[in-house]
Amino acid sequence: MNKKFIITIARQFGSGGHEIGKALAEKLSIPFYDKELISLAAKESGIDAEVFENVDERATNSLLYSLSMGLYSFGNSFSAMGDLPVNDRLYILQHKIIQKLAEEGPCVIVGRCADYVLRERTDCINIFIHADMEHRKERAIAIRGVDKARAEQVVNKTDKVRANYYSFYSGQKWGFAQNYDLCIDSTNLTTEQAVALVEAYISIRSN
Amino acid sequence: MNKKFIITIARQFGSGGHEIGKALAEKLSIPFYDKELISLAAKESGIDAEVFENVDERATNSLLYSLSMGLYSFGNSFSAMGDLPVNDRLYILQHKIIQKLAEEGPCVIVGRCADYVLRERTDCINIFIHADMEHRKERAIAIRGVDKARAEQVVNKTDKVRANYYSFYSGQKWGFAQNYDLCIDSTNLTTEQAVALVEAYISIRSN
Repeated sequence: MNKKFIITIARQFGSGGHEIGKALAEKLSIPFYDKELISLAAKESGIDAEVFENVDERATNSLLYSLSMGLYSFGNSFSAMGDLPVNDRLYILQHKIIQKLAEEGPCVIVGRCADYVLRERTDCINIFIHADMEHRKERAIAIRGVDKARAEQVVNKTDKVRANYYSFYSGQKWGFAQNYDLCIDSTNLTTEQAVALVEAYISIRSN
Repeated sequence: MNKKFIITIARQFGSGGHEIGKALAEKLSIPFYDKELISLAAKESGIDAEVFENVDERATNSLLYSLSMGLYSFGNSFSAMGDLPVNDRLYILQHKIIQKLAEEGPCVIVGRCADYVLRERTDCINIFIHADMEHRKERAIAIRGVDKARAEQVVNKTDKVRANYYSFYSGQKWGFAQNYDLCIDSTNLTTEQAVALVEAYISIRSN
């Protein structure tokens, strides 16, 4: 059914975007990339995946912070990027990997400004998944194991970091409808219903 | 098929939101309200519809501007609202009318902060329709008869006015995905395809 589209999914923390993307990829029998983009970047660069995990989907920190965290330079291990902060290195690596994966064929890519990275392509469907705060808190507690008392704070902070990351690298506003083909409130939908909606969209676009 | 939902449609100028809403209402055999809300407000208040048209979906202007335009007071013709500027009168009237229409049953309502007005109801589906600038300019020229040389300016200005109106009365950001159940980019869809997508969403929500 999805013969041609690369599907990018941006998502609020706790909105179920990851699960929707994964279920969609399974339904369409196409590859799924979320955290997988970190290990691919680690493999590509020879830098430890754990180092990347700390800065994944985070905009570049200040030079001082990067130096203090030991995130600034990796000597010759990835010499092509010279003295770039590790956040930027990861962004550039993921940027290239996302472009390569898109070249290989239909897939689902979650986060990492994939909609912006692939903006020149005409075969992308860009989706934003969001939900109301109560729903996101519940999911964060149940699925991500977030402490109940801190759930709202964690949800808000994670989204702020994601919004900064998106804005820093794309120059666009994260969660602003006009950046996406389809924005879905997952509050009143099961994962299966959200997948069915995206499938309906793909089917309509394919006609 | 739509046995229960009130559908509100917010839309960028030139995105085809009006046409999509109208076609959807026809398809679902339910009433459609867009400019009709002006005549209903005029009928309700006894104020000339033409007066309302000048301020429809516009936030209150400054007192000075309102006075200079003769928009400030209508004496006893609508005494319950005393000295409120006409923008606010129209908002309050449309607010009440929208609530009344929603009480009467399923319908499609375009613009006028209807999503915000009906925020306490659980039977609303709030939709935002947008499109890229080229598409909107083309539509503004072809359908609304906007002058080609000024098309982009008119599109941007109209949306700025709509955004201000929405923000002024709702305190929320217009076009921000999380205010809506579904945001659709109409650039790559015909009116019929957009209607089919909303129908698919209603069907999924109805299950």
